[in-house]
Amino acid sequence: MNKTTPSIIWDDFIPLTITVELLRQLRQAMRNTKYIAEPIQAYIVPSGDAHQSENLAPCDCRREFICGFNGSAGTAIVTEKHAAMWTDGRYFLQASQQMDNNWTLMKMGLKETLSQEDWLISVLPENSTVGVDPWIIAADQWKNMSKALAGAGHSLVAVQDNLIDAIWMDRPTRPSTQLLTLGLGFTGLTWQDKMTALRSKMAERKISWFVATALDEIAWLFNLRGSDIEYDPVFFAYAIVGMNTIRLFLDIKRLAVPTVREHLQLDTPSKAELSVQTAPYESVFTELQAVCASLGPKEKVWISDKASCALTQVIPKAHRTLIPYTPLCLAKAVKNATEIQGMKMAHIKDAVALCELFAWLEKEIPKGTVTEISAADKAEELRSQQKDFVGLSFPSISSVGPNGAIIHYKPLPETNRTLSLNEIYLLDSGAQYIDGTTDVTRTMHFGSPSAYEKETFTYVLKGHIAVSAAIFPNGTKGHLLDSFARQALWESGLDYLHGTGHGVGCFLNVHEGPCGISYKTFADEPLEAGMIVSDEPGYYEDGLFGIRIENVVLVVPAKPKYNYRNKGSLTFEPLTLVPIQAKMVNTDLLTQKERDWVNEYHRQCRETIGAELDRQGRKEALDWLIRETQPIA
Amino acid sequence: MNKTTPSIIWDDFIPLTITVELLRQLRQAMRNTKYIAEPIQAYIVPSGDAHQSENLAPCDCRREFICGFNGSAGTAIVTEKHAAMWTDGRYFLQASQQMDNNWTLMKMGLKETLSQEDWLISVLPENSTVGVDPWIIAADQWKNMSKALAGAGHSLVAVQDNLIDAIWMDRPTRPSTQLLTLGLGFTGLTWQDKMTALRSKMAERKISWFVATALDEIAWLFNLRGSDIEYDPVFFAYAIVGMNTIRLFLDIKRLAVPTVREHLQLDTPSKAELSVQTAPYESVFTELQAVCASLGPKEKVWISDKASCALTQVIPKAHRTLIPYTPLCLAKAVKNATEIQGMKMAHIKDAVALCELFAWLEKEIPKGTVTEISAADKAEELRSQQKDFVGLSFPSISSVGPNGAIIHYKPLPETNRTLSLNEIYLLDSGAQYIDGTTDVTRTMHFGSPSAYEKETFTYVLKGHIAVSAAIFPNGTKGHLLDSFARQALWESGLDYLHGTGHGVGCFLNVHEGPCGISYKTFADEPLEAGMIVSDEPGYYEDGLFGIRIENVVLVVPAKPKYNYRNKGSLTFEPLTLVPIQAKMVNTDLLTQKERDWVNEYHRQCRETIGAELDRQGRKEALDWLIRETQPIA
Repeated sequence: MNKTTPSIIWDDFIPLTITVELLRQLRQAMRNTKYIAEPIQAYIVPSGDAHQSENLAPCDCRREFICGFNGSAGTAIVTEKHAAMWTDGRYFLQASQQMDNNWTLMKMGLKETLSQEDWLISVLPENSTVGVDPWIIAADQWKNMSKALAGAGHSLVAVQDNLIDAIWMDRPTRPSTQLLTLGLGFTGLTWQDKMTALRSKMAERKISWFVATALDEIAWLFNLRGSDIEYDPVFFAYAIVGMNTIRLFLDIKRLAVPTVREHLQLDTPSKAELSVQTAPYESVFTELQAVCASLGPKEKVWISDKASCALTQVIPKAHRTLIPYTPLCLAKAVKNATEIQGMKMAHIKDAVALCELFAWLEKEIPKGTVTEISAADKAEELRSQQKDFVGLSFPSISSVGPNGAIIHYKPLPETNRTLSLNEIYLLDSGAQYIDGTTDVTRTMHFGSPSAYEKETFTYVLKGHIAVSAAIFPNGTKGHLLDSFARQALWESGLDYLHGTGHGVGCFLNVHEGPCGISYKTFADEPLEAGMIVSDEPGYYEDGLFGIRIENVVLVVPAKPKYNYRNKGSLTFEPLTLVPIQAKMVNTDLLTQKERDWVNEYHRQCRETIGAELDRQGRKEALDWLIRETQPIA
Repeated sequence: MNKTTPSIIWDDFIPLTITVELLRQLRQAMRNTKYIAEPIQAYIVPSGDAHQSENLAPCDCRREFICGFNGSAGTAIVTEKHAAMWTDGRYFLQASQQMDNNWTLMKMGLKETLSQEDWLISVLPENSTVGVDPWIIAADQWKNMSKALAGAGHSLVAVQDNLIDAIWMDRPTRPSTQLLTLGLGFTGLTWQDKMTALRSKMAERKISWFVATALDEIAWLFNLRGSDIEYDPVFFAYAIVGMNTIRLFLDIKRLAVPTVREHLQLDTPSKAELSVQTAPYESVFTELQAVCASLGPKEKVWISDKASCALTQVIPKAHRTLIPYTPLCLAKAVKNATEIQGMKMAHIKDAVALCELFAWLEKEIPKGTVTEISAADKAEELRSQQKDFVGLSFPSISSVGPNGAIIHYKPLPETNRTLSLNEIYLLDSGAQYIDGTTDVTRTMHFGSPSAYEKETFTYVLKGHIAVSAAIFPNGTKGHLLDSFARQALWESGLDYLHGTGHGVGCFLNVHEGPCGISYKTFADEPLEAGMIVSDEPGYYEDGLFGIRIENVVLVVPAKPKYNYRNKGSLTFEPLTLVPIQAKMVNTDLLTQKERDWVNEYHRQCRETIGAELDRQGRKEALDWLIRETQPIA
């Protein structure tokens, strides 16, 4: 599943909300001294939750609630007279259809569109006050907005009670799903080991306290999982770790379960420095205040530079050390042997399900009864038969013909297309298993692909291989590999407008930092053995078809002939083991090395997945696999 | 010539200065009310001049004067009791040898080394004042330093009189060399055309004034050249351009020359908005103040974000628009047809000289009389015989055997090695001609190279070809091509620790922005047809040899099979046409495409340079060229 690119199909066509009443109530709240000492003249509603999450729980979809637009990115601002919503190019159409005429769509990236700051300055009366919930605005965004407003005589204030929540009558409650404890067999390290490693990183940098706010980092640290957010096996929590203290903030009711109590050793005496003090989710603020009040003059507190303004500002500036990637983010990205083994197992099970699916599709498509939606459902059904299946890792992109060119497509009844012998089928899907997370894209033709379809597929395959087989020095950042994926397409004047890969969690978020492969040189961290990323170049012909070939790959040491300055080299090992359709390949365009790569890859698929299909007695899928992994000439 | 990498050989072994007396005088000046109202407790002496120049005129080598260290990068700070100098890894040895024990060497990049700010805070008495010449510190550096000092109760002040100049008795005067006027035949555009284009860029962005501070931009804008700085054909000046005003600040004596007066139309009536008002170099400050005093409320002034603090701060913040690349920098980078033609001519002449040199070396080396220095001198002599030769474009890197592994090597009597049949010879050199600037590296063996030397040379060649032959979409930034140059080396576990290419001026600086090819993702601008960069991968085996293959290449449109989203494609055309030694190539390691590239490149060398050698009657070099350009199998 690709992270960086536009979607032009939205999740559901929701009916237009008539926002007159909501806006009236919000404006009333903006004057209500129950929430603020003085009336505010504008209120900012960003996307997002208090944990920098990519996906949101329903209770956090506040921007959607107030304006109707449910895309992944957008900020709404309401003043006494105006209501405007900023989003980017991928969402112009969707937002204009989902919002009613009480709202003005602010098209980001267009020259004539004012920034939020400039727009506020242009519409606000003198000396205005602008409010925002400090829990859902990041500290750096607060800083920029505050500075711009101050420059024009206005001020930005934190409104502690969220004003959307105040008017959202049937707002869903914050989920508090059952926690799953993960033993050593899945994690490779106890949470106590991870705590000790974290503290040694803290000691190394002379840091007294670390505040964890990202949900996947907290889940990883404590070897716990939840299902508070769809697709992401996380739970709402904060953690504050000192050299002798561990505080975990979450819904206390979750701790009633004996396995959880035991896992966290809540009732058993333990080493003092490894005893977990639990406290309600909401108390993180006052507890962090208390921690900060007791800081010695040189003591430092680590917090992510993407954490909420509210928590960040609790830490006095002199004690605050902002970091782009926390030690947990970095440690979590480098998988240990047990996690690698788990990811391999998960990918074997996932491949079994996909081989079955493709064998089934081959049989069913000629009947004209399989649609994008039913194919995706079948894939989910087959995956769910595999051991330790938990759920999907993201909404399946199941797309036929022209729908394949919509990179973040999700089939809906209104767009649902039937699979046929005439059009390319692209399936980008993945699952959460207790032992690992998968994400795989295969592009297939069940009839006879055209020469052009084969040609472009082959360029994409060449790019996929160029990344997968690349050897590069230790310390190389992923963005330096991105052009390898494009070289063959570029030579023919083609390209794709998304990045090539993202980090993948181990039974965690399917998108995770701090590594990736992209032409965008965001601050990615160097690739290290044990990191896991996707390799997913593509090619999209608007109105005709989409091609993407995606494997999840593991960074492993390489042993080339020489070893310059003893730096060591790395390469990738595919974890995904699903055949790449040979019918789509124009083998004349491959070099011998590339042909060898395909044949070796298919040999591994046949060997590893074949054995598992055999073990599971899935004969038809095994036959399909054997046929699809014949060597190419 | 490579820009981004370390040199460990310095220009001259200068005798240690006994700095006791100099430091005494400087500390006296720091208390002298002639220069400052109140005594200062520290004085910062950065490298650099008032124009962000890479190379310096002797009068601007102030840091060298005060501490003895003459490397290209370093900052000295003198307090009442201490004197410390910060430099980076490439200069640790040189600095420690050139500085006496009155100075502390601060090794940047080492964990234990304090930053300048932290060091100042650690040694200064409370409420100290730190001085710096605002003309040689960039505005953003000033800001950072000022903030850090203020945080610790100190303050940073601008000392208008440079205190080094105050104690530098025999300080050379600022050069004021004769100006050379360039006609349309060399520039393709009159300075009036360039002025009009600049103003239309200003109008587009609603900018009223533009302040030019970079010397190569001013030289380019006015179609004038000087020789104030060795290797760079520039002259000391500033320019301020308004929509109806042009002000040029320079040594007024330079305007006594009739050709210059005529070129600038100083005496002939001209359109009012194209009349150049000249003023003394030093008056730029007061003139810019006058301009700013008359600004309307919404008027904006453009200045580079690398310009001096002194000039930047003259512009009130509300009117100041800082830009990373000025419109002149961008316009200058995209060469017009005349400039491209000139660059081609310059490269033909340069290739003639090099073919002669290599033919001569082949004859002379067996006698054992040619050294690194004499070979470099011979290259200069041969170049100087070519039409419109002006001088070298940088100090020749002429290096034998192990000296070749020192990337910025310059031969000195103490290191001078004799060329032989047993060691690799690397020559990185270039010249300024009135029609263009060259920069070429060839690596040769005059006996029998070892299999390992051939192998690594071939990897470097593969990298050189991969960049040179790359096809990529319009809008691609150079850093996305860097890995192509390394792919073959990486596959064998090898690498080189410098960037792959830099922009090259047209009879201007051999290093220019805003484009380049590097793993460092500095803010490079996208490549455009007409830009000219170097392509210079290498491989260096410490203590044994160095390999680099460098051509200057022109960005040109490419016409691949398809044209994705009508974006268009680009590729490179080599301007450098000097044979690449076939003897060094292990042809088994080349693909057919790469062999074809080499043969086609050599065909062009033979055709173009052969014709010129023939015309110039240089028979021996022609024979050499014909032999060296035989097709490889």
